[in-house]
Amino acid sequence: MRVGTTLLTRYTSFATFRATTASKETKRATVAFSNAALTRPPASALSSAIEALAARFGNSLITSQAVREQHAHTTTWLPMQPPDAVVMAQSTADVQDVVRICAKHRIPVIPFGTGTSLEGQVNAPAGGICIDLREMNRILAVHGDDLDCVIEPGVTRKALNEHLRDQGLFFPIDPGADASIGGMAATRASGTNAVRYGTMKDNILALKVVRADGEIITTGTRAKKSSAGYDLTHLFIGAEGTLGIITEITLKLRGIPQSIAAGACSFATVKGACDATILAIQTGIPVARIELLNAAQVKACNAYSKLTLPETPLLLLEFHGTEADVAEQSAMFGEIAKECGGGGFEWATRPEDRTRLWQARHDAYWAVRGLRPGAQAVATDVCVPISRLAECVVETEKDLETVGLLSPIVGHVGDGNFHCSMLVDVNDPDEMQRADGFLHRLVERAQAMGGTCTGEHGIGQGKQKYLETELGPEAVQAMRALKAALDPQNILNPGKILPA
Amino acid sequence: MRVGTTLLTRYTSFATFRATTASKETKRATVAFSNAALTRPPASALSSAIEALAARFGNSLITSQAVREQHAHTTTWLPMQPPDAVVMAQSTADVQDVVRICAKHRIPVIPFGTGTSLEGQVNAPAGGICIDLREMNRILAVHGDDLDCVIEPGVTRKALNEHLRDQGLFFPIDPGADASIGGMAATRASGTNAVRYGTMKDNILALKVVRADGEIITTGTRAKKSSAGYDLTHLFIGAEGTLGIITEITLKLRGIPQSIAAGACSFATVKGACDATILAIQTGIPVARIELLNAAQVKACNAYSKLTLPETPLLLLEFHGTEADVAEQSAMFGEIAKECGGGGFEWATRPEDRTRLWQARHDAYWAVRGLRPGAQAVATDVCVPISRLAECVVETEKDLETVGLLSPIVGHVGDGNFHCSMLVDVNDPDEMQRADGFLHRLVERAQAMGGTCTGEHGIGQGKQKYLETELGPEAVQAMRALKAALDPQNILNPGKILPA
Repeated sequence: MRVGTTLLTRYTSFATFRATTASKETKRATVAFSNAALTRPPASALSSAIEALAARFGNSLITSQAVREQHAHTTTWLPMQPPDAVVMAQSTADVQDVVRICAKHRIPVIPFGTGTSLEGQVNAPAGGICIDLREMNRILAVHGDDLDCVIEPGVTRKALNEHLRDQGLFFPIDPGADASIGGMAATRASGTNAVRYGTMKDNILALKVVRADGEIITTGTRAKKSSAGYDLTHLFIGAEGTLGIITEITLKLRGIPQSIAAGACSFATVKGACDATILAIQTGIPVARIELLNAAQVKACNAYSKLTLPETPLLLLEFHGTEADVAEQSAMFGEIAKECGGGGFEWATRPEDRTRLWQARHDAYWAVRGLRPGAQAVATDVCVPISRLAECVVETEKDLETVGLLSPIVGHVGDGNFHCSMLVDVNDPDEMQRADGFLHRLVERAQAMGGTCTGEHGIGQGKQKYLETELGPEAVQAMRALKAALDPQNILNPGKILPA
Repeated sequence: MRVGTTLLTRYTSFATFRATTASKETKRATVAFSNAALTRPPASALSSAIEALAARFGNSLITSQAVREQHAHTTTWLPMQPPDAVVMAQSTADVQDVVRICAKHRIPVIPFGTGTSLEGQVNAPAGGICIDLREMNRILAVHGDDLDCVIEPGVTRKALNEHLRDQGLFFPIDPGADASIGGMAATRASGTNAVRYGTMKDNILALKVVRADGEIITTGTRAKKSSAGYDLTHLFIGAEGTLGIITEITLKLRGIPQSIAAGACSFATVKGACDATILAIQTGIPVARIELLNAAQVKACNAYSKLTLPETPLLLLEFHGTEADVAEQSAMFGEIAKECGGGGFEWATRPEDRTRLWQARHDAYWAVRGLRPGAQAVATDVCVPISRLAECVVETEKDLETVGLLSPIVGHVGDGNFHCSMLVDVNDPDEMQRADGFLHRLVERAQAMGGTCTGEHGIGQGKQKYLETELGPEAVQAMRALKAALDPQNILNPGKILPA
């Protein structure tokens, strides 16, 4: 059996990212979650599978401790659970062969994109083989006339948009991180542009998926719409690799807008900012981005990005369209903002001004971390009907104050979706308990308002207990039935989404 | 056991609709389709089920021949296959009880909305109990602030829009017929507005669905987006009642646009009209409707609606937005049309002018029927990537000419979707054979161009043989596994979507 350690160079950027957090996380306190019941496959089955994989994949099979740990999830406070080996897949045929070998020996298979998921989606609670898809990063076809493209799952959104720019096209979904499109599909990701362009579920025409038995399913065509049979495309979007492994994606694209304008507007209260958002959506202004930063987040951004924004709730906006469109939309929003108590704001149409304006938003995560060096930042999200947004954010701010936790809030508020980036000392059991209580109440609050426990991060390991409270036991039973139907041996990313 | 015949008054409008076609269709020639293998349940099981239903539902259980036939599908050339009885459901609890009784006796259950589906979706090939949902037509809640509403499945799109109008809201999906929203969800319908507002799959936030065991599944919340677990909502949208029966729908709504402009533009060729469409989409003009009528269809409309349109390919358009938006969009499209050889055209912003302009489109079906009185109109649809649209329509026109069939073409061309309304003498075996060959080649042509066998009508009974050629045997196997998982006794609308 050959194992590659020389391949570590493949991970340069990844390793840098991990280096910031990995050392302390291996020894941190762990919060109980519901996959404890999963058991590892017998050692003999595992070694047979790894032997077969080594024969097939040579140096592309890696079992070194370092690489395995790089593939364990560490962006949350969930414990790291490395796989037993990693295969660097180059093609759909590679993925099929890994799955076939693992199916034969009943070994878990965990798909991996860039490792930026936030709820433990790439952890390996029962061990198994991680399929790293980042080298499946070819753009197979761009059909400019049809506004679509066909890509492999390891293509990242930034790489895709760089490739598309010359053709005047772009792919609008922007979750912040330079995630792989495959991972974004698997977690039903969205982000800042979703208010106008929708989420991953609205921007995928078809998938090629490797089933649990290694066969390939094609879920759709390049036609813009179809009523042909069950919607397999949407079944795999957001399934977090538990029903099949995505190896090809047909995406919708958009033309780069003729004109883009950005602007910022401060409000005295979160309620004022939310009311302005609600009015903008109701009025039908096709805003491309509308992001809330609460006062704590603005303070963090000022410190990190050396800005002098008023430390009150802030809305950042972007409008796309023709020049006339953008001017009209901006003016309409200006009136709404004024009505809702917003301060004056500038509009920026030059790319460099837009970039400056959005810098604060893009650096939000790092700004938060800068507030309490050494603390772990735990990101979570909920989403509520927009009419309840102000109430939900205000109650959440009060809750944070009551329990004495630091957690700036940013939100894709046009969708009613917001994020808390909590800063915790994972070695302080009392603080961890308060944080755990806060996260629980946050979800309860959102669900009680008709919302969801996660707008865009997914269930993974971290939010399994909330699925049943949100949709009821019958829905979870139905999900279990679907999982059993498509993955009867439970080898595809086991321990994710559905409580054990 | 009580059976209601006095309830026939409930069907006035429906009976009128049926009266135009029912008499000749009972004796027409039938084209073979793939459900012949389905067997009826034993007579004893059926009579036990009907007895239990009669005890529970009294007069709301109907077994008269007339009512049963009204619930058999007759808008295609598929044979009529009436259910054994019809239950007029009033509530989710009613649906649960029908399903429970039928599950106990293994009797098929067929959901029914308005009977306007086009591929045999409401036929009862193995008999069974039809659940008529039209009296479940309550609008349960309208949340204007959140741009959503919660309705029962029997609400029709016109009734919903009438209810919403005073609040400045509308539901954009318009398949032509005044279909029930439940039926539109079940068949993943779309129509003229889809190019801007998407299809049913893009406009449903959550469903309440009665499972095959009578339990209720809730598939989502009112949050605008969610990453919580498998996408059950989309699994039931387009499943044609084969996985569960939809009893409640949470829909997205839109604000009625400030301004609506409509226009018509004639082209010398189909290619010119399609090229203009492609350019409009690529340019990002947010056109609300863009409909193609080929020369044969314009001729039919002139005759039926007493118009004097040039009998060449015609595009009908509609733009929504602010007054400035609409003016800009209209002007941009005007330039594109000119570039593609379009004739001059008028824009109409007054409601009465718009109505006149769209009359031809809305009456297209009746206009077609008027071309050959006594013939059966068979509607079918395909959808291709928009870059192949002109080629697909032109080849289809040539094919029709070659085989000597009359079939005007209308298309939701912004989506690459078009319809043939074939006029056939169902008692002429030679003509039926030519028609059958044409339909087959139409689907093959669309699929060969990367398209789908149905953009919006669904698979039903009529298009089952094309599912596998479109997506491959593995996808169909996966669909079968899902069906078996959620409906192990195969009682939910058996014989639809999946070939027996």
